[in-house]
Amino acid sequence: MGGVERGFPSAEFEARIARAQAMMRTAELDALVVTSPPNVRYVTGFASEFWESPTRPWFVVVPAEGQPVAVVPEIGRESFLATWLDDVRTWPAPRPEDDGVTLLAGVLQNLPRRFARIGWELGRETVLRMPITDFNRLCGLLRGIECVDGSPVLWALRMVKSRREIERHRVICGLASDAFEAMPGRLALGMTERAAANTLRLDLAERGVDAVPFVAACSGLGGYSQIIAGSREVVLGDGAVLIMDLGATWDGYFCDFDRNFAFGSATDAARHAYETVWRAVSVGIEAVRPGATAAELWGAMAAVLDLDEAGGMDVGRLGHGLGLQLTEPPSNRPDDATLLMPGMVMTIEPGLEYAPGKMLVLEENVVVTEDGCELLTRRAPEVMPVIG
Amino acid sequence: MGGVERGFPSAEFEARIARAQAMMRTAELDALVVTSPPNVRYVTGFASEFWESPTRPWFVVVPAEGQPVAVVPEIGRESFLATWLDDVRTWPAPRPEDDGVTLLAGVLQNLPRRFARIGWELGRETVLRMPITDFNRLCGLLRGIECVDGSPVLWALRMVKSRREIERHRVICGLASDAFEAMPGRLALGMTERAAANTLRLDLAERGVDAVPFVAACSGLGGYSQIIAGSREVVLGDGAVLIMDLGATWDGYFCDFDRNFAFGSATDAARHAYETVWRAVSVGIEAVRPGATAAELWGAMAAVLDLDEAGGMDVGRLGHGLGLQLTEPPSNRPDDATLLMPGMVMTIEPGLEYAPGKMLVLEENVVVTEDGCELLTRRAPEVMPVIG
Repeated sequence: MGGVERGFPSAEFEARIARAQAMMRTAELDALVVTSPPNVRYVTGFASEFWESPTRPWFVVVPAEGQPVAVVPEIGRESFLATWLDDVRTWPAPRPEDDGVTLLAGVLQNLPRRFARIGWELGRETVLRMPITDFNRLCGLLRGIECVDGSPVLWALRMVKSRREIERHRVICGLASDAFEAMPGRLALGMTERAAANTLRLDLAERGVDAVPFVAACSGLGGYSQIIAGSREVVLGDGAVLIMDLGATWDGYFCDFDRNFAFGSATDAARHAYETVWRAVSVGIEAVRPGATAAELWGAMAAVLDLDEAGGMDVGRLGHGLGLQLTEPPSNRPDDATLLMPGMVMTIEPGLEYAPGKMLVLEENVVVTEDGCELLTRRAPEVMPVIG
Repeated sequence: MGGVERGFPSAEFEARIARAQAMMRTAELDALVVTSPPNVRYVTGFASEFWESPTRPWFVVVPAEGQPVAVVPEIGRESFLATWLDDVRTWPAPRPEDDGVTLLAGVLQNLPRRFARIGWELGRETVLRMPITDFNRLCGLLRGIECVDGSPVLWALRMVKSRREIERHRVICGLASDAFEAMPGRLALGMTERAAANTLRLDLAERGVDAVPFVAACSGLGGYSQIIAGSREVVLGDGAVLIMDLGATWDGYFCDFDRNFAFGSATDAARHAYETVWRAVSVGIEAVRPGATAAELWGAMAAVLDLDEAGGMDVGRLGHGLGLQLTEPPSNRPDDATLLMPGMVMTIEPGLEYAPGKMLVLEENVVVTEDGCELLTRRAPEVMPVIG
């Protein structure tokens, strides 16, 4: 894919761990423990759809010094030994009465103790992927060690992408831009939302995308009233406006952007709203530079859209971070003071409810550079395409 | 799809809530709160890929009497009003300083208080999909109410499927059986694991499957050494045995079964192992009847496979429950005393490591009936197919 091969060299993971360990010293943590698919993948490279099975917990310990340790079910031994990690401990899972708890407690108790604090996925936009009853039992076993929220470290770490991570965002944004540009030739007046979504999915599969975890195909006369529910058996008739919002991955990294299509004809009001939102995207992209805040991105777009602080829409923000997950911190919101830094990948996502139940949302993806940003997606057309 | 339409009538959800409420009285719970995609879908029917975004938590409260209450981000208001629920409360999310916590606490505090206990997704094979720091804060706000593990009730509820749920399992198992039976005509000596997996994915998409969250395509000479990692760029040469293990859904319900293919030629040892495992499947299916335990299913298959209690493989069990998730309780293991009941959907999944690093695993899906079981998948061939 444009000269990029799947998988990372060990040097990539070593650099991530070095950054993590520096942050852990500042946060006064002796270790981080991760349990969720994106964080385990970030630390180890382990990629598997087996996460779909909720039966077994998986743990990776990142100590403040030295190499990470995987504490995983026996069924994963070989897969974890195939990662860059050397230290893989296993137990025979499933074993509901003790699914890794005492094994993990032993590993954590034997770590060098400096701060007597271990960070876990307990905070904002993270999920602890293990039974909470087991987590509480485990914390009880760790006498003299405090279990605290490690999510600020995890997000600070993941928010700034490496050169290799950005390459992957370029690949998936390029493939998805190709697919969206082919859509006018594949959509037709009278097809259903569901058929439109399936057309996009098939097209993406043929282009070599790895996975398409998110497609929203939502329509309404002149605009749509929501943008999250799955596509329905609703016919795209004259005057319908369809949003196709897409989260697809290549080698683990997401694109998240949308395109809008009018069917048959578009009213002046719908056209005008589209053009206003398109201008807000331009202004948003121009506002992206190191040192700006996420709140300033919101402000720049909100001025074009004439939004007050309540936002005028139920979406609650005008874009967000992007990476191994469809959405990541920060949020482009009036109260998010996160400073943009080179390497952060962001969505620019203004939207307008120009009449009750008639929304128009546009979205592009950018990466923050030393002096501004690089557009990862190819911009949507300046005028809303009409499917004849 | 065989006369089955997507979506459930309200009567289906009302019956689920009635069963839940009966179980909650026995478990002495005033309410259950669910936060995770399968449990929210089970209670409300809400289906959305927007779960991919970890930013916002979602809550559904099932009180011991009366109707469920959705406490969800504003972005989901319309989608939840489109479900069978009438009572939908929203807050402007994301709002990290209070993402639904005080709103939900208010709803819970106003419930009739009989046991002063509320059940949450805290136990076996469940995930609490909200920041644990928020959960702890919320439990602190609920003065006089104890937050306890509600997962035994949730699993007892979901483990037994309704007639309509079983219809959906039949649809997806039928579609996937069709796809697997077409594979010998689509696989070829010399293709890669990744190409084989993509071939299956595309075929399934064309047949109208909704999603394919899990495909493992793993190969090795005469057998494979693991069955969970994603497919690789490994060529399927002479003597390779490929397992394709598949978790696909239709209207939310999973199939989970596999097929094996030899490439070029198969050794006698590999053929023999396949046939042994195939016989173990037959014995496993025959052992399924109401009143048998999951442990007895394990025992019947283990006898054919000549396994000791350690299992001889790292998989840790010989099948499991199936439903809205790829794997659900119970586990076919020597220590799982769960009684089979009519309506339980199970996988029968014996496997053998007949030489170091050479595994063969076969899997079928069944539903427990009044006097035995009904096979949902069409059995794998009795002799391992060879791709020429």
